[in-house]
Amino acid sequence: MEFTIQQIAAMLGGQIKGNGQAKINMLAKIQDAKPGQIAFLSNPKYEQYIYSTQASAVIVKKDFSPKKELETTLILVDDPYSSFTALLEEYHKMISFQKVGVEEPCYIGSGSTCGSNVYRGAFSYIGSNVKIGDNVKIHPNTFVGDNCVIGNNTILHAGAKLYADSKVGSNCVIHAGSVVGSDGFGFAPQPDGTYKTIPQLGNVILEDNVVIGANTVIDCATLFGDSTIIRKGVKLDNLIQIAHNVEIGKNTVMAAQSGVSGSTKVGENCIIAGQVGIAGHLVIANKTGIGAQAGISKSVEEEGEKIMGSPAYDVKDYYKSYAVFKKLPELNQRLRELEEKVHAYKANGQSH
Amino acid sequence: MEFTIQQIAAMLGGQIKGNGQAKINMLAKIQDAKPGQIAFLSNPKYEQYIYSTQASAVIVKKDFSPKKELETTLILVDDPYSSFTALLEEYHKMISFQKVGVEEPCYIGSGSTCGSNVYRGAFSYIGSNVKIGDNVKIHPNTFVGDNCVIGNNTILHAGAKLYADSKVGSNCVIHAGSVVGSDGFGFAPQPDGTYKTIPQLGNVILEDNVVIGANTVIDCATLFGDSTIIRKGVKLDNLIQIAHNVEIGKNTVMAAQSGVSGSTKVGENCIIAGQVGIAGHLVIANKTGIGAQAGISKSVEEEGEKIMGSPAYDVKDYYKSYAVFKKLPELNQRLRELEEKVHAYKANGQSH
Amino acid sequence: MEFTIQQIAAMLGGQIKGNGQAKINMLAKIQDAKPGQIAFLSNPKYEQYIYSTQASAVIVKKDFSPKKELETTLILVDDPYSSFTALLEEYHKMISFQKVGVEEPCYIGSGSTCGSNVYRGAFSYIGSNVKIGDNVKIHPNTFVGDNCVIGNNTILHAGAKLYADSKVGSNCVIHAGSVVGSDGFGFAPQPDGTYKTIPQLGNVILEDNVVIGANTVIDCATLFGDSTIIRKGVKLDNLIQIAHNVEIGKNTVMAAQSGVSGSTKVGENCIIAGQVGIAGHLVIANKTGIGAQAGISKSVEEEGEKIMGSPAYDVKDYYKSYAVFKKLPELNQRLRELEEKVHAYKANGQSH
Repeated sequence: MEFTIQQIAAMLGGQIKGNGQAKINMLAKIQDAKPGQIAFLSNPKYEQYIYSTQASAVIVKKDFSPKKELETTLILVDDPYSSFTALLEEYHKMISFQKVGVEEPCYIGSGSTCGSNVYRGAFSYIGSNVKIGDNVKIHPNTFVGDNCVIGNNTILHAGAKLYADSKVGSNCVIHAGSVVGSDGFGFAPQPDGTYKTIPQLGNVILEDNVVIGANTVIDCATLFGDSTIIRKGVKLDNLIQIAHNVEIGKNTVMAAQSGVSGSTKVGENCIIAGQVGIAGHLVIANKTGIGAQAGISKSVEEEGEKIMGSPAYDVKDYYKSYAVFKKLPELNQRLRELEEKVHAYKANGQSH
Repeated sequence: MEFTIQQIAAMLGGQIKGNGQAKINMLAKIQDAKPGQIAFLSNPKYEQYIYSTQASAVIVKKDFSPKKELETTLILVDDPYSSFTALLEEYHKMISFQKVGVEEPCYIGSGSTCGSNVYRGAFSYIGSNVKIGDNVKIHPNTFVGDNCVIGNNTILHAGAKLYADSKVGSNCVIHAGSVVGSDGFGFAPQPDGTYKTIPQLGNVILEDNVVIGANTVIDCATLFGDSTIIRKGVKLDNLIQIAHNVEIGKNTVMAAQSGVSGSTKVGENCIIAGQVGIAGHLVIANKTGIGAQAGISKSVEEEGEKIMGSPAYDVKDYYKSYAVFKKLPELNQRLRELEEKVHAYKANGQSH
Repeated sequence: MEFTIQQIAAMLGGQIKGNGQAKINMLAKIQDAKPGQIAFLSNPKYEQYIYSTQASAVIVKKDFSPKKELETTLILVDDPYSSFTALLEEYHKMISFQKVGVEEPCYIGSGSTCGSNVYRGAFSYIGSNVKIGDNVKIHPNTFVGDNCVIGNNTILHAGAKLYADSKVGSNCVIHAGSVVGSDGFGFAPQPDGTYKTIPQLGNVILEDNVVIGANTVIDCATLFGDSTIIRKGVKLDNLIQIAHNVEIGKNTVMAAQSGVSGSTKVGENCIIAGQVGIAGHLVIANKTGIGAQAGISKSVEEEGEKIMGSPAYDVKDYYKSYAVFKKLPELNQRLRELEEKVHAYKANGQSH
């Protein structure tokens, strides 16, 4: 990024006080900023820094009146914090999508097509009959199997791997090392104690606006024509396991190291904390909240439940039980004393 | 795959009713099938679909007599479901092993040898003195370190990584992103609070018919000549951790995100659920069943035990305790009331 | 490695008894050793093996006097075990650092520099403006993003991935498949139930002597200029999750599959077992010990605490409670009996 302060002020609909010609190439905090950088001042507590900042420009509230002379250029806006956030997002989008073109060597199979402004990093592998949309960024060392489809504006980070036949929507981000479409864990026990592999012939569908964290794994569905489905807007953190034939509902978020077993259907807008395990063949209602390290062994039928524990149940009840659990040795002792008392009393009673 | 119906019927030992010349390139469910695909009818509930299916062929029971006219060709067999499953397996084997030859660029070091019908994908790396058997499929972006040995019919999916000296048997599948042979976690504490790395000089052995899920990690053994060993027929799911010097016995299956700590020996034909943790230096008897999220802190000596909890013990006893755990606040309350009663009673008694 | 026995004896400050000209290329246990290998004898229990060993040389205590004739050459030292360990370390260092030079094809962007004795494996990718120190070993299929800095003697194993702007110190080891610098899991809920991605603009800093296990993930910090920091001497095992803005203190060790949530600060010299989860925004005191599968939901303020459970508290207290937990059905029964007794007694009492 390299803009003049004038260009940035125009973007933000702000007014300039000072030299609008200086160039900005980075955003920073007001106390850390260096020349060429832009900062913001929103909280009056930080006002002191504006008099010593090295930032080339500072975004301030329209009515800000400096108490001392300023070296930096001001951009006057209604809401400095949200203007700065808008700049951050703009900047992030720019750096996310700035790479374009083909670095050699890279590989693309026959019948595959790419839209405009695609980046294909060195050592990226694209199989045959793959369809890649516009602005897709395929970073180095990634693997896209035969017949995959990738929608517009989707980013595959270094070393992401899509097995053949995976479908990825638009505006998705798949982080480094993630695997989409590996075989489901299906093995049929044989009379001699060995296992026979059940062929895994389905695929994975990621709808639009899905984010997949680093080193997460999503298995394909077992049967032909079936799919493991990650619905629109789902955000999965790092090191998550999604088994075969799972469906994760719209806008559900899952924190790191959680896992969902085969054929379970997780609802929409659920919030699932880290290291949670969900058993197979369950249905989890919309808006379910699941606490960290919970183990879900049965379906959740009511919307909006908050659960915890292994096996999990109502989070408040879990904490109440756990509070008593911590006092169990004491409780055991009280029970013993009471037994003795009652025993002694009865003995006394009987000795009358 | 592209076969005529006649060829498929011959494979299945079935009889054709209709046009045997049509070509089949895919399998599908009867209700979803398209021209060029083959389906089956086993459950009478689905009979309705055979009259409208677009499948070019349907596998049916020998004695099936249609109630209406049919557009599709029939293949008559004894057991349609198992015939279809056999076709699925055949199809799966074909697509798994169809890639042959060398995609450029790829790398192979000096002294390495490959058997017949090997596939080496683009950007795959094979070090020096590696021995690769027949029909081995090395997908793109994989890494095979120096001195590795890989048996016949083994598949390494994209981005799998074998450190130097790993030995992999025949008919194994290693899924994308898995790591075999990384350093064991061995560090010796020093008086100044730092840790010194203990050199990890052993290797990993995977015997025949082993399946390793995606992004799973298996560390090498610590000492020279020692090995971390995954025995014949073991199936490991995704994101599993196998530490240094572990041995996993024949035909044991482990679900996703479980971990086994250093030097533990897991028996044969165990069934280990997801997110289980097994401590180091233990021995787990054959046929042990371990429930999800269990933490195993001591050896399991008796065959066939089923355990659960953290630390784990008998699964039925665990569930009985957990049922009371959920009522602990109530139990605590009952105890308090009883204490009060006894106290009051004693007081009354003493007031006589 | 290929040394004469004489050279090794000189290294160890030992004296030779026998032929010092034979060449050694490997270390082994005395009972397994083959010609060309060197072993040691420390424990008298193993003395029997020295008379039949095929080792070309055996390191023994200065005062060792053989009871039979020996075929092998002896190296006499003060402490055979520590001499052997020193050799092991030397050997390990040699094989770790023996690769030098550039294997083609590999990729390096503009403005990037490499020190001396660097290894860049085939299909390794180094972005632009990267600074790589001396003796750095970049194994095949790794990815180093733009502007990264890597200190001297650091090893990146196959398929490791550093996002742009990561800083790695000297003498670090990053194992295969690990990801450094992926986006933190930051999403702002919107009124319509969707989530907006919060741009992640910080980076990751690994200080010197850090070891990162295979397939571990470390997210970058959220804000510009902020860093997720792994301090000097930290050792992280495989499949660990370190979230955005976390700091792990000097010489802390974490076992496999543990996770630390956003903005938590873990102290120095902590010992954290496997599958532990630590919530966000906490401070964990120095020298805290955390038991396997513990869930840490609040800060640990006192140094040297040992905790366990989910939520975690004092490990001894946890085990005491857990002991009673296992007897809960029995405890419940005792309470019920006592209730009946008291009820009956009262009834009797009232019937007086």
